Amino acid sequence: MPITANDTNRKSWLEVLENSDFPIQNIPFGVFLTKENVVTVGTRIGNFAIDLGALQQLNYFEGIELTDDMFMQDTLNDFISDGQKTWRLVRNRIADLFDEKNPKLRDNIKDRDIIIFKMEDVEMQLPVLIGDYTDFYSSKEHATNVGKMFRDPENALLPNWLHIPVGYHGRSSTIVPSGIPVHRPMGQTLPAGETTPVFGPSRSVDFELETAFITTDVNIMGENIPVTEAEDYIFGMVLLNDWSARDIQKWEYVPLGPFLAKNFATSISPWIVTMDALEPFRTKGPKQEPTPLPYLQQKGKHSFDINLEVAIQPEHAEPTVVSHSNFKYLYWSMCQQLAHHTSNGCRVNSGDMMGSGTISGPTEDSFGSMLELTWGGKNPIKLKDGSERKFINDNDTVIIKGFCQNGHVRIGFGEVSSKLLPPFVRK
Amino acid sequence: MPITANDTNRKSWLEVLENSDFPIQNIPFGVFLTKENVVTVGTRIGNFAIDLGALQQLNYFEGIELTDDMFMQDTLNDFISDGQKTWRLVRNRIADLFDEKNPKLRDNIKDRDIIIFKMEDVEMQLPVLIGDYTDFYSSKEHATNVGKMFRDPENALLPNWLHIPVGYHGRSSTIVPSGIPVHRPMGQTLPAGETTPVFGPSRSVDFELETAFITTDVNIMGENIPVTEAEDYIFGMVLLNDWSARDIQKWEYVPLGPFLAKNFATSISPWIVTMDALEPFRTKGPKQEPTPLPYLQQKGKHSFDINLEVAIQPEHAEPTVVSHSNFKYLYWSMCQQLAHHTSNGCRVNSGDMMGSGTISGPTEDSFGSMLELTWGGKNPIKLKDGSERKFINDNDTVIIKGFCQNGHVRIGFGEVSSKLLPPFVRK
Repeated sequence: MPITANDTNRKSWLEVLENSDFPIQNIPFGVFLTKENVVTVGTRIGNFAIDLGALQQLNYFEGIELTDDMFMQDTLNDFISDGQKTWRLVRNRIADLFDEKNPKLRDNIKDRDIIIFKMEDVEMQLPVLIGDYTDFYSSKEHATNVGKMFRDPENALLPNWLHIPVGYHGRSSTIVPSGIPVHRPMGQTLPAGETTPVFGPSRSVDFELETAFITTDVNIMGENIPVTEAEDYIFGMVLLNDWSARDIQKWEYVPLGPFLAKNFATSISPWIVTMDALEPFRTKGPKQEPTPLPYLQQKGKHSFDINLEVAIQPEHAEPTVVSHSNFKYLYWSMCQQLAHHTSNGCRVNSGDMMGSGTISGPTEDSFGSMLELTWGGKNPIKLKDGSERKFINDNDTVIIKGFCQNGHVRIGFGEVSSKLLPPFVRK
Repeated sequence: MPITANDTNRKSWLEVLENSDFPIQNIPFGVFLTKENVVTVGTRIGNFAIDLGALQQLNYFEGIELTDDMFMQDTLNDFISDGQKTWRLVRNRIADLFDEKNPKLRDNIKDRDIIIFKMEDVEMQLPVLIGDYTDFYSSKEHATNVGKMFRDPENALLPNWLHIPVGYHGRSSTIVPSGIPVHRPMGQTLPAGETTPVFGPSRSVDFELETAFITTDVNIMGENIPVTEAEDYIFGMVLLNDWSARDIQKWEYVPLGPFLAKNFATSISPWIVTMDALEPFRTKGPKQEPTPLPYLQQKGKHSFDINLEVAIQPEHAEPTVVSHSNFKYLYWSMCQQLAHHTSNGCRVNSGDMMGSGTISGPTEDSFGSMLELTWGGKNPIKLKDGSERKFINDNDTVIIKGFCQNGHVRIGFGEVSSKLLPPFVRK
């Protein structure tokens, strides 16, 4: 089915500012709360949130097979479960309805009033109920940097890394959308040179620059999905900040991996940008040497050229961009991650989320965490207000942005922006 | 509130065979499917399943504040969310209704017909929708055995182990109830002496003898629960088989922990035995030396005397018990696990499940996995039919049972029994 929604010549009758992440060619999916306390599935064009539940009720999806309450829900799980054909039909229809040449909704002021909200008048929610959240570790540069610092500079990459898209399970219950503040975690750490641990606020709270993809129902238990088919099961992507407490992590992570160092919070951008919208930005990933085992081999372009940046904004000051990276640096593709994940028959459901792992690039200004940017705190970063950071301070806001751009169109993710509050005080 | 349901003098008008795991003093909670395709929350006395949805509809819970559809659901999450007071009221009422001295339901044949099913006529389901599943690693004997085999015999326990109830996140989507068969997973492994991995069926599929506890809503994000209050948030316990593919685990687990070696399947017993029912079997856990940090310190008895055993049953042969262990061997208590889990503010919700980790005892016949029982496959186990096992063979059934017994009463878990099928063949 042609993705007519991607037509770069199309313009919307809704105002879209230059350099907006959300031209009519994007049409991401999310969930928002209105001032009338209504939760609905929606999309966004420019700075307008569009209520898909209302669009459906007013019959604008006529001819597309949808259950009656497909969009009058507080998650996208059912819609995502309907599969790629439905996603395309709906996205194409939305593009058609908001095309400047189409008078149907454009000239119906009454319906427009019901359907369209200013972004400032809605509150974005988590777009999906995340049954299981997996986080990969797929940047060779990041794994190498961490290996150099934490283990052996001469053998930074562990023996399995070039053969396996290494991953682990994260915590679903603490995934929050952009805008929700996060508390500095308390935890157990081992002070340098000591043999007895202490308990207190983490002294090295870090961000991790990541993206994540959201799946549809992939398989039944036991079944694997070949790498060549994996793409059909990926609905779209978001930006992800994998908050990390480095001192807690260092003490707890052997032998079962990070736990409390990570599960206090994970922040994501609220609009899921579809793989269809990202299609024009397909590119090759890094050369894989040695050649992966057959179940992970794929031909063609399976990465995406997505510019990523991280800024730190101290309270009452302007943000300073501290990292510029790109999704295309990732060594393992999303298809390889998903094929590996199901290679043992692990069931993957609609709304499951899989993080990329920290996306570090080859240069020092493209590292995706403070751990790497300051090299374990040795080289503090100077912010615009003159202050320095080894890690994230209380009341700093971390802002991750991402967008694709070519000569014809810009498709963006908006941002995931979250403030680090001091430790929680129990009442 | 007194737990009158635990009165050991009480007898039921329903037949309960001697040595049944489910006398009227147990009253566990589960979810079952009837032959009429109705799913309901239920309990069990002897070999009878009791439909709590029907009991509620017929007004037998009069006087207890419950939402109208509390038990006409396919999970226990809402009931568990209602908290300890409701659990006790409902359990006490059930005990009262099925007491041989109470004619109310006993003498109402019409209602009995609607409410009571033979166990053989119902199909047990997962009792809860598990939002997040955590698995701990809290047996000192198990951690020591694994450390000796996989790492350094002289320093088997890692430095953090005596200070932290080490744990990690597992996969919710592949948790299945007793009776559901499991496929031998495919996966990547590194043959001994090689440097290039291969992909194929795991050659060392193992069980892990565990229990798990199920929580109610514990906290809001950011908040910690003190170890002294943790018990109030634990609803009950089940038996758990943490299926493990040792060859996959060995190759993949550094540095982020087990992933595909574990997430192909986790089997649990279907009846949640409440902490109230286990109350008479409270006992002290092992002495903790060094003293844990203050946030993990607790006084009194916080372990439970639960006999555990594992049997392997080859196809067309009788089962052989291969391990006898006990929950009381666990070093870290469930309260310590939960307090640690929330010490960084990690949110824990109703229906979340936390595994104990393999429960190995001090003697060789009390080890909780084939890895330990056969010491990495070096000392095969002989089964009753004359065959030998290093790990689990295709078409073997692994059966874990658990029960508490004192002079007055036996409170059991039933079993978690699951057959290992050959690798899945994709159609």
